[in-house]
Amino acid sequence: MKKIVSFGELLIRLSSPGNQRLQQTKSLNIDFGGAEANVAVSLGQFGDQVKYITRVPKNDMVLSAVRHLNSFGVDTSDILYGGERMGLYYYENGSCGRSSKVVYDRAYSSTATLTRGMLDWDTIFKDADWFHWSGITPAVSEGAKEALLEGLEEAAKRGLKVSMDYNFRGNLWKWGKTADEVMPELMEFNHVMSGTHPDVDVLNDNIEDYHFQIEGDKIMQRFPLCKIVVFTSRGVISNNHNTWSGALYDGKKVYRSQQYDLTHIVDRVGGGDSFMAALIYGLRNIESLQEVIDFAIAASAIKHTIEGDQNICSVEEVQHFIATNGTGKIVR
Amino acid sequence: MKKIVSFGELLIRLSSPGNQRLQQTKSLNIDFGGAEANVAVSLGQFGDQVKYITRVPKNDMVLSAVRHLNSFGVDTSDILYGGERMGLYYYENGSCGRSSKVVYDRAYSSTATLTRGMLDWDTIFKDADWFHWSGITPAVSEGAKEALLEGLEEAAKRGLKVSMDYNFRGNLWKWGKTADEVMPELMEFNHVMSGTHPDVDVLNDNIEDYHFQIEGDKIMQRFPLCKIVVFTSRGVISNNHNTWSGALYDGKKVYRSQQYDLTHIVDRVGGGDSFMAALIYGLRNIESLQEVIDFAIAASAIKHTIEGDQNICSVEEVQHFIATNGTGKIVR
Amino acid sequence: MKKIVSFGELLIRLSSPGNQRLQQTKSLNIDFGGAEANVAVSLGQFGDQVKYITRVPKNDMVLSAVRHLNSFGVDTSDILYGGERMGLYYYENGSCGRSSKVVYDRAYSSTATLTRGMLDWDTIFKDADWFHWSGITPAVSEGAKEALLEGLEEAAKRGLKVSMDYNFRGNLWKWGKTADEVMPELMEFNHVMSGTHPDVDVLNDNIEDYHFQIEGDKIMQRFPLCKIVVFTSRGVISNNHNTWSGALYDGKKVYRSQQYDLTHIVDRVGGGDSFMAALIYGLRNIESLQEVIDFAIAASAIKHTIEGDQNICSVEEVQHFIATNGTGKIVR
Amino acid sequence: MKKIVSFGELLIRLSSPGNQRLQQTKSLNIDFGGAEANVAVSLGQFGDQVKYITRVPKNDMVLSAVRHLNSFGVDTSDILYGGERMGLYYYENGSCGRSSKVVYDRAYSSTATLTRGMLDWDTIFKDADWFHWSGITPAVSEGAKEALLEGLEEAAKRGLKVSMDYNFRGNLWKWGKTADEVMPELMEFNHVMSGTHPDVDVLNDNIEDYHFQIEGDKIMQRFPLCKIVVFTSRGVISNNHNTWSGALYDGKKVYRSQQYDLTHIVDRVGGGDSFMAALIYGLRNIESLQEVIDFAIAASAIKHTIEGDQNICSVEEVQHFIATNGTGKIVR
Amino acid sequence: MKKIVSFGELLIRLSSPGNQRLQQTKSLNIDFGGAEANVAVSLGQFGDQVKYITRVPKNDMVLSAVRHLNSFGVDTSDILYGGERMGLYYYENGSCGRSSKVVYDRAYSSTATLTRGMLDWDTIFKDADWFHWSGITPAVSEGAKEALLEGLEEAAKRGLKVSMDYNFRGNLWKWGKTADEVMPELMEFNHVMSGTHPDVDVLNDNIEDYHFQIEGDKIMQRFPLCKIVVFTSRGVISNNHNTWSGALYDGKKVYRSQQYDLTHIVDRVGGGDSFMAALIYGLRNIESLQEVIDFAIAASAIKHTIEGDQNICSVEEVQHFIATNGTGKIVR
Amino acid sequence: MKKIVSFGELLIRLSSPGNQRLQQTKSLNIDFGGAEANVAVSLGQFGDQVKYITRVPKNDMVLSAVRHLNSFGVDTSDILYGGERMGLYYYENGSCGRSSKVVYDRAYSSTATLTRGMLDWDTIFKDADWFHWSGITPAVSEGAKEALLEGLEEAAKRGLKVSMDYNFRGNLWKWGKTADEVMPELMEFNHVMSGTHPDVDVLNDNIEDYHFQIEGDKIMQRFPLCKIVVFTSRGVISNNHNTWSGALYDGKKVYRSQQYDLTHIVDRVGGGDSFMAALIYGLRNIESLQEVIDFAIAASAIKHTIEGDQNICSVEEVQHFIATNGTGKIVR
Repeated sequence: MKKIVSFGELLIRLSSPGNQRLQQTKSLNIDFGGAEANVAVSLGQFGDQVKYITRVPKNDMVLSAVRHLNSFGVDTSDILYGGERMGLYYYENGSCGRSSKVVYDRAYSSTATLTRGMLDWDTIFKDADWFHWSGITPAVSEGAKEALLEGLEEAAKRGLKVSMDYNFRGNLWKWGKTADEVMPELMEFNHVMSGTHPDVDVLNDNIEDYHFQIEGDKIMQRFPLCKIVVFTSRGVISNNHNTWSGALYDGKKVYRSQQYDLTHIVDRVGGGDSFMAALIYGLRNIESLQEVIDFAIAASAIKHTIEGDQNICSVEEVQHFIATNGTGKIVR
Repeated sequence: MKKIVSFGELLIRLSSPGNQRLQQTKSLNIDFGGAEANVAVSLGQFGDQVKYITRVPKNDMVLSAVRHLNSFGVDTSDILYGGERMGLYYYENGSCGRSSKVVYDRAYSSTATLTRGMLDWDTIFKDADWFHWSGITPAVSEGAKEALLEGLEEAAKRGLKVSMDYNFRGNLWKWGKTADEVMPELMEFNHVMSGTHPDVDVLNDNIEDYHFQIEGDKIMQRFPLCKIVVFTSRGVISNNHNTWSGALYDGKKVYRSQQYDLTHIVDRVGGGDSFMAALIYGLRNIESLQEVIDFAIAASAIKHTIEGDQNICSVEEVQHFIATNGTGKIVR
Repeated sequence: MKKIVSFGELLIRLSSPGNQRLQQTKSLNIDFGGAEANVAVSLGQFGDQVKYITRVPKNDMVLSAVRHLNSFGVDTSDILYGGERMGLYYYENGSCGRSSKVVYDRAYSSTATLTRGMLDWDTIFKDADWFHWSGITPAVSEGAKEALLEGLEEAAKRGLKVSMDYNFRGNLWKWGKTADEVMPELMEFNHVMSGTHPDVDVLNDNIEDYHFQIEGDKIMQRFPLCKIVVFTSRGVISNNHNTWSGALYDGKKVYRSQQYDLTHIVDRVGGGDSFMAALIYGLRNIESLQEVIDFAIAASAIKHTIEGDQNICSVEEVQHFIATNGTGKIVR
Repeated sequence: MKKIVSFGELLIRLSSPGNQRLQQTKSLNIDFGGAEANVAVSLGQFGDQVKYITRVPKNDMVLSAVRHLNSFGVDTSDILYGGERMGLYYYENGSCGRSSKVVYDRAYSSTATLTRGMLDWDTIFKDADWFHWSGITPAVSEGAKEALLEGLEEAAKRGLKVSMDYNFRGNLWKWGKTADEVMPELMEFNHVMSGTHPDVDVLNDNIEDYHFQIEGDKIMQRFPLCKIVVFTSRGVISNNHNTWSGALYDGKKVYRSQQYDLTHIVDRVGGGDSFMAALIYGLRNIESLQEVIDFAIAASAIKHTIEGDQNICSVEEVQHFIATNGTGKIVR
Repeated sequence: MKKIVSFGELLIRLSSPGNQRLQQTKSLNIDFGGAEANVAVSLGQFGDQVKYITRVPKNDMVLSAVRHLNSFGVDTSDILYGGERMGLYYYENGSCGRSSKVVYDRAYSSTATLTRGMLDWDTIFKDADWFHWSGITPAVSEGAKEALLEGLEEAAKRGLKVSMDYNFRGNLWKWGKTADEVMPELMEFNHVMSGTHPDVDVLNDNIEDYHFQIEGDKIMQRFPLCKIVVFTSRGVISNNHNTWSGALYDGKKVYRSQQYDLTHIVDRVGGGDSFMAALIYGLRNIESLQEVIDFAIAASAIKHTIEGDQNICSVEEVQHFIATNGTGKIVR
Repeated sequence: MKKIVSFGELLIRLSSPGNQRLQQTKSLNIDFGGAEANVAVSLGQFGDQVKYITRVPKNDMVLSAVRHLNSFGVDTSDILYGGERMGLYYYENGSCGRSSKVVYDRAYSSTATLTRGMLDWDTIFKDADWFHWSGITPAVSEGAKEALLEGLEEAAKRGLKVSMDYNFRGNLWKWGKTADEVMPELMEFNHVMSGTHPDVDVLNDNIEDYHFQIEGDKIMQRFPLCKIVVFTSRGVISNNHNTWSGALYDGKKVYRSQQYDLTHIVDRVGGGDSFMAALIYGLRNIESLQEVIDFAIAASAIKHTIEGDQNICSVEEVQHFIATNGTGKIVR
């Protein structure tokens, strides 16, 4: 099978242990993240061929991050080295009604200072048939947006499928334009995309299928290449307790997953990324669209129980989770 | 604004990590506590001028404790150095129906061997307009009770407002008199006090406003200086799951907070202290009594999610908690 | 009082910290386990005279394990040293619908290579009046089964009471025979036994007393020495949330415990072992059978809140748990 | 063989990890110590029958400490429970020219409040033929001195051998008398004793045998029961680098050990205790006095490489150390 | 006494535990540093009035850093909040011939984007009589150099004494000019300065006093305000083993310290900063220049044994170190 | 360039933290090792194409180990899955004269149960020109020896160069034959080999070149394919302090490295493996044989400062080490 290319900013995640506040901790756990890297790591574990593209400087922390990706089978051979820094974020785990907290330190990262013409798309897209991006890249800088747009144009030329996660982060859009001004031009290229646009987050689990259909049709009319729109629905009862479900619309029918009751969440960062990865895997490897959305929601439900940004789990573990209906019987 | 003076015993808290029992742990986390120090640390973070008074020997653990207080903006310049030891307690976190456990080792502490005449109240009360104490100090020894009584007399002479948290700890009262014999003489000085007296703990969330009123009126009749009585109400579903709400009575009306459902408690030690601190802050900085009790209960709800005895949180975080209704949405 | 002898395989348990997956952890916590060792450790803490029998090689990890048993008052003086290795297992804690996971590495252990004639039952059974075993020992190898059968024969000769926990582990039975082929011969010796046979796990909390009675009668008819059959009932809502209750049948009446709602489980490994230990303690030290089952279920409910395989708790703590109805009020 | 009884104060040791200062650490490692407990733990590992006597209150930390002793085979059945607290000390590891630091918090311990008449020496000395004490016990309080004196009288009545480690700690002698006033009366009972009296610490490795002889003769003349005097000699090059050697004098000849060069010390606390334990073992189990002093110095050289107060090592390991001349070849 | 003002960039230090490489570590210890902050923290512990000036954004990591400074008595009330990020560096501890390693991530920090006119020197210099800076500030950016120059001009106007540590870091000077082009203009203001200029590092311990004198005279001729030049001399035997000594020249005489042999270094980062702090303390509080250089070298020798960038030690501890000649005898 | 194939047993290494004994530790750090895997990991970091061959079962610990290898660029695609267990060893770090200690638990590993015919050498040797093995594989079992012999025969057929590290471990040879009986048949295939045969370990640093020549000639006469013999020389001053040097003989001349004085060793396990890896790298990438031995000794000197079995370091770091003569200057 051909390669999936995932492109975005690689981040160091530094999190306080257990429930400690960043204000009080004396040590930080190291993980690596970034929405598109998270997608790549899941796909690597699922056995897909996946290449990750980013721009980072050369130093020991970057070396650790790249080795981390390699360990999960992600091809990092076309990462561009240059620029001055690798972005990072600090993370503290909330509890009950105290929110988890992200403190970004990603200004002036090597990905933010990337621009059109720097990446060698010919090499990058060799043997690839799928390109994945998210709404975070165009948010970080105009140059990053331009590099991404170039990538999308090159992908289109080569006939790659394009998938996108909107991933709206209000406090990242600081370079002069808003998401609404920038995103549509990029979304023209999408074949598969998440519908969790700011306008859509009023949706909830009590809604009927036709609401998804209306929303999906709106998207497909505006972006005619798009043939699959997916929705995730998170009910926030507390920082520790969420409900999680999803829907997939193919222009004809709405396929809905079961709703999981996640009562003791370990780490919900990367939940959406694990969903996108499992969706891409599903669309490439599973025939039934119902099974695709079931797989994607089950995989991302598991992510909520895993420390770090990435979903450390295999296809077999997702299937076991579905088979036992997410009840958590001990395995021995 | 003038200073708040908080007076009591400073303690080292040594807790087993995670859910380990004291019987099995090989290491202990260090925090510092004591009801009145906890109040001071919250007030320091809220931006109030606050001074903490205690008696401790000079050694490296005390130095750590004092620096800890300083880091939160607490004025420790009038702490009295002397005596033989700083009290401490061991703490293990319970779970489900297994109770959290406190093993005290505070006998013969420098605060317990304090007595009338040792503290220089002239210096202590310079620029102060508020004095806070709790029912723990008169419990530890007759000398500590005498030192406290002297402080209350001196506070009264200078026209300071006095607030008190009853903080009944049955197993501390060992020096020959009971709380009922000793406390009333001290409570005469209170302007603001908690109503969680042993007689009152039958109160629960299902009770009507008039129960608080009856209880509050009883207190105000007995202690005529007292103009504000507050109540907190904890529903113990398990060691991890409590409900938490409060009421404030000003002799005219009962103001009640919302009830928070704390389903995944991290650490409830210091919950009452964080409430008293936020109450004092509120009475000095917030006009509406309804907003005062809302602020105090929200602040102390947050405390249940923080490791250690003290409420590591700012005024803005309490306001955000209230604004999002305690739902714990991730911040990024 | 005379000694209880518990016989089985001693294991090293290596668990990833917190919620980390085995796949991602860089360190492992060490505990020691094995169903029958867990029973011994509980009995030692309860103040019973208890001796543990196993076969292990001589090395530093074994030394640690034996010292661990000694620290809880378990007599290890008749442990047989020999063979090539001590079994171990890796453990990761699940969450929500992700199951906890056990990776066994116990093949060719010194207990698996044990056989008839190796153990000196005369010395072992000196001053003993009770022999405890579990269904794990005959599962590991034919030799271990033979050694156990010899022990049961010797116990019978000396008139010891015999108790058994069925402890079915499907993936351990690999030496050529099934549990159904092997177990009945061994169960002939039982006076007290658990009824959680594969056929019985359809039982749940909604069932009536007479279901236990029917099941118990079946067992007692097949194994006429057996005078006490016990059942535990676990409702798995998620990996973190189980219900837990039990029943005891003496051939005449079914005694049922209350059901505990374990909403924030710390570690459920060894739950059944802690139940068996408390049952044995109860049958030897408590008169009322109702109180026996209450004690055994409360003790094992506590186990779910303790890290490691073993129930670190005393008789007094179990009694306190029962007295406070498992509500988890803080003790200070 | 008969039992050795070791009597003294049991302490909790709380040490900062690695090289952290007490002033900066956020966690403490737990060990248990006390000179005489350290002696008992070594003897237990060497396979001697050993009983430890102290007075402690009942709480979870004490339970941990007692289990710790049990795990090394120390008989704790005659420990007296009572009083208000168990002493403790904080420890930080120095480096280069920065000294290691001990902060004691042992005032008013249950051992300090012990006195004559409390301990049941009949039971304690059952089956015993050796009594070990140190100069720390008479330092902590007059009552402790009296209890010890009673023990020595009772030991003498029963014909036990008595060994003593002088263990001078200047800052412990606070109850009104000096070591010089108190110790001689107690030392009358000694058969074996350390000569590291304040007057003797001028001795160093360059001294000749006859210096030890002169010093030993002085002691034997003053305390005629004494037949063995031992000396240890520590050369302090830095906190990490010491030399270590010893001498034994039997009234006739001086036996000297080799000098070990300890260049990367891990933890020198308990060095002297491990020496005394190995000496007692040697005097009871090894014929040649030269081998006795060699064994004792080698055992205590090993102690300098072990974390905690106690010498975690076996007779075989000491013998291996001597055989390889303390060169540290890897074993595999 | 009047205040010392120390001005520079505040940094987060993230170091791998023990001897782990940055490439392999999964967690990082948090400390806070920056040459001038390290000076302030030492001075705070020595009891001097000290204020620290920097520019940082507002976030939780900054809050931690500022509290850290407060805990040591450093006045942070005039820190300027603004800009986009707080600089940080990653640190790994070397061993033997493998060098310790610093990976900087301080580009675009709030201090680097500082410039003339931003800081309110009137408020900053209120009640101050001393201004300390280092060669790191003009290295990070032209704006930072301008802000510093403005500070020096304002200090001169108010008659403050100025001290400087050259602190040459070749890889920081990237904004277009070299240290040699920029530094002299700033050094004109110095009254006290380190002579460890690139030209001087050929000096070693075997050199004679007159070499220091020649070097010092050169400096004093070029910068006529300068009355004190100090030199430190580090002999690097390995990453763990250095020698450390210093000299002070007042234009008349060279005062030389003893040389310490630091055989087991814990952390040498901040060694020079601790020297400068102790020098400033000495020049303000100690009369004899010989004692000043002795104090400064002893204090910084201690720093080599302390984890983190800062010298956690008091005046008394430095005096004890000198008194015991840096031998590291245990204190108890 | 073509591939290097390294073949041997993959091991889990479980080590106690810091200086703790296995007997006392409560947690273990996880690393992965095995002599030939260590060689592969070094070669991967040096940028060579390297493939690792072993036999392991499928489980989560194996998955971790394989990902670990992948992260360093080692090709694991031809690892054979099967058998019952992955070998492991426990490791404790010694100090001073207390030896580091290895407790093996590798009996019945999947590599030990390997035999001739199981491995697909056609696939394994595709694009390879070098085969590396060590004396550990024929020690573990007769089957493993047979599988290795088959590999050597297949390598010879294809004209691969063969390198070997003798790696004598006396306590592994338990299957019925001695090293001397088995090894010569296998050594016939070697082109490059270590000369640290049991007969040779009398060599030391004071020896002259001609001793190496005599020894090397003996080897080359017995094994005529062998063109390069290497020697390492370790002087054990203590567990923490070794000297380290090497020599290379090509049948004509002895090339000797400098001797490094490793005074503060972090972890010497894998020292020889890192030497062999750097030797192979050197022989393939460096022209001068003098530079080859210099590179190999410098690389393995660095290993002594790295935690774990493997040499986490790059070619550039080895070159820097040589350039700075192993002095450990801080890099910033």
